[in-house]
Amino acid sequence: MRTLIAGVDGYLGWALALRLLSKGHEVIGVDNFYTRKAVKEVGSDSALPIGSFHQRVRGLPKDKFSKIAFYNVDVTDYKRLKKVISKYKPDSIVDFAEQRSAPYSMRSRSTAAYTLSNNIVGTLNFIYAIKEINKKIHFLKMGTMGEYGTPNFDIPESTFVEATINGKSDRIITPKNAGSWYHWSKVYDTDNLIFANKVWGLTMTDIMQGPVYGTRTNDITSEALFTRFDFDETWGTVLNRYCVEAVLGVPLTPYGSGGQTRAFLSLEDSVTALSLLLENPPPDGGYRTVNQFTETYSVMELAKLVRDKASSLGLNVEIKSVDNPRVEAEKHYYNPERKVLPALGLKGPTKNLKDEVEIMIKDLLPYKSRLEKHKDVIAPKTNWRA
Amino acid sequence: MRTLIAGVDGYLGWALALRLLSKGHEVIGVDNFYTRKAVKEVGSDSALPIGSFHQRVRGLPKDKFSKIAFYNVDVTDYKRLKKVISKYKPDSIVDFAEQRSAPYSMRSRSTAAYTLSNNIVGTLNFIYAIKEINKKIHFLKMGTMGEYGTPNFDIPESTFVEATINGKSDRIITPKNAGSWYHWSKVYDTDNLIFANKVWGLTMTDIMQGPVYGTRTNDITSEALFTRFDFDETWGTVLNRYCVEAVLGVPLTPYGSGGQTRAFLSLEDSVTALSLLLENPPPDGGYRTVNQFTETYSVMELAKLVRDKASSLGLNVEIKSVDNPRVEAEKHYYNPERKVLPALGLKGPTKNLKDEVEIMIKDLLPYKSRLEKHKDVIAPKTNWRA
Repeated sequence: MRTLIAGVDGYLGWALALRLLSKGHEVIGVDNFYTRKAVKEVGSDSALPIGSFHQRVRGLPKDKFSKIAFYNVDVTDYKRLKKVISKYKPDSIVDFAEQRSAPYSMRSRSTAAYTLSNNIVGTLNFIYAIKEINKKIHFLKMGTMGEYGTPNFDIPESTFVEATINGKSDRIITPKNAGSWYHWSKVYDTDNLIFANKVWGLTMTDIMQGPVYGTRTNDITSEALFTRFDFDETWGTVLNRYCVEAVLGVPLTPYGSGGQTRAFLSLEDSVTALSLLLENPPPDGGYRTVNQFTETYSVMELAKLVRDKASSLGLNVEIKSVDNPRVEAEKHYYNPERKVLPALGLKGPTKNLKDEVEIMIKDLLPYKSRLEKHKDVIAPKTNWRA
Repeated sequence: MRTLIAGVDGYLGWALALRLLSKGHEVIGVDNFYTRKAVKEVGSDSALPIGSFHQRVRGLPKDKFSKIAFYNVDVTDYKRLKKVISKYKPDSIVDFAEQRSAPYSMRSRSTAAYTLSNNIVGTLNFIYAIKEINKKIHFLKMGTMGEYGTPNFDIPESTFVEATINGKSDRIITPKNAGSWYHWSKVYDTDNLIFANKVWGLTMTDIMQGPVYGTRTNDITSEALFTRFDFDETWGTVLNRYCVEAVLGVPLTPYGSGGQTRAFLSLEDSVTALSLLLENPPPDGGYRTVNQFTETYSVMELAKLVRDKASSLGLNVEIKSVDNPRVEAEKHYYNPERKVLPALGLKGPTKNLKDEVEIMIKDLLPYKSRLEKHKDVIAPKTNWRA
């Protein structure tokens, strides 16, 4: 199996590459190192030290090293992107190469415009490259559970859903209601993919993924193999941020009352899920929507869980809510369906979330002095309303 | 009342400017003359001769000439756009400045990317300019009835709608299902405006307009005041194209079986509707969705109507369907709601469609030799499936 991973230098991209190589698969990596630059831009850095991409690849054992190729390509550069895809004709393409931060997208007009046009054009380029090179290439889009917002209906794990509107029934695209330009850009990717699937019969897996947490997977067995780990307000996700706060001994900072419930999964389960979806593609011309998560928690529940685990490790931290910088419901219904991944074999979380938090804190503790340098980039400064 | 019209050099833009000036209102026009270039690019021209924008403005009577200003600005150039809005602080902004052709958007990867990013970034720029200059500026977005596709439910004239999904009820954004990158770009504008309204309380009128037909309005009283009139496969709309075919004596060309039903209105009624919406804005912070049309017809019904009217004028034309280049249902339910404009005073079509077709054919006949030069750009060449 040959997979092209766009954004192979990122948190998920590198972890997935390692997993696929461990399974004996071939990987074609593509990245423009945008995230490295963008994280520096906000004055932050990966909590865990990572070498350059080339250093990391050179650190791989020979059998893996021989199965990975790499190209420094910006996916909005259609000509160069198409060239790489034409050369390798992968079985599947996984697209992590989008601007992935909601706060970044909300910072200014120009970051909003960049997020929308970069993400939409990137995905459009994959659509056209696949259509022109080989319509059977399976495309995996990394969407987000945030595309749905927090609806009062159970979030179905399907591209379309039956809805009754003013007494008439119709099959509609599963309703979305996003909460940032970033999240909307993902909705627009979804709609564009549904349209491309309808008109050209392209084969799609649309992954609605919840926030991912964790410092490692089973493949990350040494410091040389670390994947990046962000914790600042712009690039870090909530549970990862909490763990860094715990290590630093500063209060854990849920936004607002903390009742916001989201669908989480560990990095280990994320790469397991992605491998399962790659190894089990939909039929040619199929469109498969996957809610990729294992458990739901409110962000306050997670804060308490991290506080208690930290305490059992001798770290005393308190919880101190901060004004919610986002425009989002803090009390709401939340019930996403979850059946595609269990049917493929990912029944539930591989590891108890508490155990994973313990591993994270232990992994981060040796790097406390690295984190100290970036203490001031954790509190939210980007306000949705500003 | 002071209105900024973006795309003031276009079919609707110029006609609306004339109407607002006739009513004694002030107009700030903005255009980058993109449509003039783009129509030339496909080897076509406006069926009715129009002077340069400056010639047209200089042809206005003094009382109108003194009430219109103009700036050659591309709305994706945020700095220059913001400067004009800051200078005039209009009561309202009407945005016609988007790539407006579905076939153009489907022609290639680069026209698709251009349509999506140009349209989305243009609207985003208006959002940010209004947010930064004066949140009370009323923004009118020209959307399209095509955003809805052809659903089995009655198309409500509302931003949100109650829907029952798997037994649970929720208020969702009125479902969309577009049929080209162009139509999707309009859906994305809608979603972005709904989000901006939610987060920043901007005041919006979202106009879902059907295809417009007609050569003139009550304000177009001489050749010097003509608005452009496109008829080629890329830039012309269906009824305008039929009338040109009738004048040329070539067969009328519905796509496929012609059962596609759409919601139409005349140019006269379009500018009347727009004036009513401008003079009667929603309350500050309101979001108003309008289905802007007066009657629904299938494209085959329209072809027959034009054939019969042409025949009564001594022009013998036949109807000859061409393979449908689009991916669309040719037999479907179609029942859009229409209550906002009737409540404001636009009860139905001002003129019978047959009478309007007669005026169009008579207006076009003197320019038959102009049209002869562009005979070969009428038949569809852009195929959705290609």
